[in-house]
Amino acid sequence: MDSNDCVFCKMVEGQIPVTKVYEDQAVLAFLDIAPVSRGHTLLIPKQHFSRLHDCPAEHLAKVCSSLGTVSAAVASAMNADGYNVLCNTGRAAGQIVEHLHFHIIPRRTGDGLFTHWPASRYEQGQIEQVAQEIRKHL
Amino acid sequence: MDSNDCVFCKMVEGQIPVTKVYEDQAVLAFLDIAPVSRGHTLLIPKQHFSRLHDCPAEHLAKVCSSLGTVSAAVASAMNADGYNVLCNTGRAAGQIVEHLHFHIIPRRTGDGLFTHWPASRYEQGQIEQVAQEIRKHL
Repeated sequence: MDSNDCVFCKMVEGQIPVTKVYEDQAVLAFLDIAPVSRGHTLLIPKQHFSRLHDCPAEHLAKVCSSLGTVSAAVASAMNADGYNVLCNTGRAAGQIVEHLHFHIIPRRTGDGLFTHWPASRYEQGQIEQVAQEIRKHL
Repeated sequence: MDSNDCVFCKMVEGQIPVTKVYEDQAVLAFLDIAPVSRGHTLLIPKQHFSRLHDCPAEHLAKVCSSLGTVSAAVASAMNADGYNVLCNTGRAAGQIVEHLHFHIIPRRTGDGLFTHWPASRYEQGQIEQVAQEIRKHL
């Protein structure tokens, strides 16, 4: 998707209204209108990047530097017991809007959200093969 | 938990073996031994912080600057269609090890992982109240 057609870019530019909670030079944070829990916030770079890995390291650093502060404020304000920070990258991973965004989702003990964690195990020797494959790509 | 008792600190210090995929001055990235999908990687700051918001903004920037590069390598190596980057903060949010960590979870179309996204809606006027509450904490 071109940044001209991007709903988040239009929010950054003020063409689509948002319920803003935080803003600095690099990011805008606003409430998700379809919240998984009350206070569910999206933190996005003002500049358009489709994927997390499209954002250059130096810029990603600026974007992420406010993640802790904003998350803590969201959690405190909502009297949450914790929170998830989640960046879905690619349609297969649940990314709907093609502009890099971090979900900040306040959580309460026993709220029943995201309880599915289907952990498995590697067969013997397999983990080292997987790591080698990844290291080749770095 | 004290950093002396922290399993991830022991990994950073080499007292517990890890299957490393990446390392720089600020972070260590290694394979999760109980992967949600093949190649599931954990990226952690070498310095001990319990929660995301315990990590000062400047240091968090350094930690996150490699998130894109490592995620892209994990996804490419695993021929993934996408990936989730997830930081669970607090027991209520699924944090087990009390040392800040980002999960990088390769995803394939239709893999059936994390399909539950229980979005709701705010009642009229409620979203602005929530935002005001958060802004008070920033």
